[in-house]
Amino acid sequence: MPLLLLQTPEQVAMLSIPDLIKKKRDGGELSDEEIKLFIRAVTSKTMQDSQIGAMLMAVWLKGMVSTEIQTLTKEMMSSGQVMSWPDKWKGLTVDKHSTGGVGDKVSLVLAPALAACGCKVPMISGRGLAHTGGTLDKLESIPGFNTQQSADQIRDILASVGCCIVGQTEMLVPADRVLYALRDATSTVDSLPLITGSIISKKGAESLSALVLDVKFGRAALYKDLQGAKQLAQMLVEAGNRVGIKTAAVLSRMDGTIGRCVGNSLEVLESLETLKGNGPADLMELVNTLGGLLLLMTGVVSSLSEGKKKISEAVIGGQALSKFEAMMVAQGVAMETARSLCSAHTDYYSILRKAQQQLDLTVPADGVVVDLDGLVLAQVLHKLGAGRSRAGEPINHSVGAELLVSPGQRVKKGESWLRLHYDHPVPDQVALLQKALRVGKDNKAAEGESSLVAELLLPNEAHTL
Amino acid sequence: MPLLLLQTPEQVAMLSIPDLIKKKRDGGELSDEEIKLFIRAVTSKTMQDSQIGAMLMAVWLKGMVSTEIQTLTKEMMSSGQVMSWPDKWKGLTVDKHSTGGVGDKVSLVLAPALAACGCKVPMISGRGLAHTGGTLDKLESIPGFNTQQSADQIRDILASVGCCIVGQTEMLVPADRVLYALRDATSTVDSLPLITGSIISKKGAESLSALVLDVKFGRAALYKDLQGAKQLAQMLVEAGNRVGIKTAAVLSRMDGTIGRCVGNSLEVLESLETLKGNGPADLMELVNTLGGLLLLMTGVVSSLSEGKKKISEAVIGGQALSKFEAMMVAQGVAMETARSLCSAHTDYYSILRKAQQQLDLTVPADGVVVDLDGLVLAQVLHKLGAGRSRAGEPINHSVGAELLVSPGQRVKKGESWLRLHYDHPVPDQVALLQKALRVGKDNKAAEGESSLVAELLLPNEAHTL
Repeated sequence: MPLLLLQTPEQVAMLSIPDLIKKKRDGGELSDEEIKLFIRAVTSKTMQDSQIGAMLMAVWLKGMVSTEIQTLTKEMMSSGQVMSWPDKWKGLTVDKHSTGGVGDKVSLVLAPALAACGCKVPMISGRGLAHTGGTLDKLESIPGFNTQQSADQIRDILASVGCCIVGQTEMLVPADRVLYALRDATSTVDSLPLITGSIISKKGAESLSALVLDVKFGRAALYKDLQGAKQLAQMLVEAGNRVGIKTAAVLSRMDGTIGRCVGNSLEVLESLETLKGNGPADLMELVNTLGGLLLLMTGVVSSLSEGKKKISEAVIGGQALSKFEAMMVAQGVAMETARSLCSAHTDYYSILRKAQQQLDLTVPADGVVVDLDGLVLAQVLHKLGAGRSRAGEPINHSVGAELLVSPGQRVKKGESWLRLHYDHPVPDQVALLQKALRVGKDNKAAEGESSLVAELLLPNEAHTL
Repeated sequence: MPLLLLQTPEQVAMLSIPDLIKKKRDGGELSDEEIKLFIRAVTSKTMQDSQIGAMLMAVWLKGMVSTEIQTLTKEMMSSGQVMSWPDKWKGLTVDKHSTGGVGDKVSLVLAPALAACGCKVPMISGRGLAHTGGTLDKLESIPGFNTQQSADQIRDILASVGCCIVGQTEMLVPADRVLYALRDATSTVDSLPLITGSIISKKGAESLSALVLDVKFGRAALYKDLQGAKQLAQMLVEAGNRVGIKTAAVLSRMDGTIGRCVGNSLEVLESLETLKGNGPADLMELVNTLGGLLLLMTGVVSSLSEGKKKISEAVIGGQALSKFEAMMVAQGVAMETARSLCSAHTDYYSILRKAQQQLDLTVPADGVVVDLDGLVLAQVLHKLGAGRSRAGEPINHSVGAELLVSPGQRVKKGESWLRLHYDHPVPDQVALLQKALRVGKDNKAAEGESSLVAELLLPNEAHTL
């Protein structure tokens, strides 16, 4: 067994990948050249999977300093195609990214609202995995909606409509595609530098002017407390601004659900209702805040409150709904279907498939709704087919749940609190679902709940990090 | 991007490999069951290379406690064939392992000496990589010597001769074959738990009664100082004893070379001369100490000094030479060739190929030889073709060097100090080689050199670790 691996100069050149791994393993800072070599070797597949795994683990354990993260992000971004936009859109291309929530249909309302306010929104979204839903899955419950659009098609839709919601193209950030797939397998997902590189590189390749991040914390989020989420948010905001995107973040609470519907087609239904002016307050708060920040950063408005108002008006006034209808048509939905979904008195289930069975769960005792556990709800729906455990698995768009009560609401024994939509029952899941509801004697706990949005991080603050 | 990967019970079972990686990443101790799963997944190739890379890095950075190392070693050992020996050899099967030295031909003398003392020596050796030579490469400079022997053939040779020196079979410790190949690529070679698992599992699969380890420290060794080498030696001794092999270690200095010849066929020549009673003192000191310890542990003798004497007598008396001759024949060398190599006045170069060119390097000034740098010598010879940079590369058995002076020796300007054997010159290498010699005004530094063997670790001491 040759333990002595002292290297000649030729070997150093030949073995540069092991050298990079060794440097990070020993806690060193990788130079720009070294990070460039790493990302090129990942993209060109000259780095072995075992080496990528070892490097990911070394980064997870040893971290990266701000300059390393910045270089990592830039090199990942330029590992593939970088989109280009007409000059006249300068300053107006915007997007938002969420770290994943239960019932999070913000994108479906926000993208058309921003388009209605004059922005260009090339929203590149993902699919659901584990208990979180994916925006693409939600939209695909609309017959004909095509989330796969080329760069040219995206440019055309932005020119005619102003917004689109599409999947990542093959050409965009290929380095992330490799790293992201391996991070899951190697238990290196929750590394701040790797999360930052992955998210910001993709947004950078969209050539955005402004980006807003919705970083969740709470029971149903990656970070259980504000502090952890804030650390990620600060890193993301800094990295975004450093690659030239005006970036802000919203730290928002994620204990229950966003809105009252969870499940792919039910969330489309709730989004359409919101675009028709009947949206739940928590969803509207998020949409207005995230949109308001983007309008402020692009200079469309001069204050956050003005931005929130402008977004709210675009939703309430129906202009966002018109944009959503046009976007559906531009992305393959039949004109009649789109018009029907967007009309005032539509029968959604004549277009969206309804699950075979509906079951109402009832309140076990008189009292006040103290808590609705979004994580339990999401996990049960996942089991019933609403989500996938592995990338590529099919899902059932019709499975979902409608919440019929809200935290703080006084309820009576026997009253329905949740309507479950499903095709195939799975034993024990309904009993488990009942645990998501907590009814108390008074409504102190519920009243104690603060606003969904806990804190904002603006670009300027980020620069002082 | 789904950041939330909270798992259902089914997913935990499905994703157990990422869970194992996560546990070690977070500094946890892996249970026996978990290590078993890891090694099985490695052997069956159900663990992805990226996951193995991540796990190796996590082990490198977080280490393993004694019980984990013990389980790792046992599971690796039983990942393939475990050799079995006749009952009458009980207590007598022995082997030695060295962490790699320059000019280290100890095995070629020790194996037949032990056989001459009644031991059974199924010595499984390796090939050279980078600047260290490999015992198999050395033996293959003898025409006809076949290092590939099946388990049955090994048993037959041990029955008839008492010793053999062979390569690892395909069936032995397949888990190590996988891990060892990836450790090099992922910069996780020098991890004490991984080194220990690799070395001791292979020795365990040989079903040894006793094992002695030659752990090197010094300029030309993995560990530059005694302390690092001692830590490895303690871990190896403990792990060996815990898998049921009486294990001891010798900590030996490795600044220069062992003996006066370096290079494959030149080392065979020096080994044969040693077996004919003309061995250099340092080589004999190592052979006697390592062999003496094995004779003590097997109970053939009752003290180390008795064991050293017995080994020395077997070498000086020619019994070891007879065993070497018989071993060569048993491993495929023509009887006449073997006899000729072992006769008193042989022309070695009528059998071993001589390099096309010999060049004597001369002393630049009058003085005393203060230092001969073994690492520089080995690196130059490597460049000239004596070694390989990647596994599988061919080597030139004839390339080598004979040292004509010793540290402490008074020399005159123009006197030859080294004879270089080579076929194809490589620019600058001869000039570099001259730097291996340091001549001083007096011999203080050289006289300060202590014995090659710095310390011994016996099985009993290891138990008190």
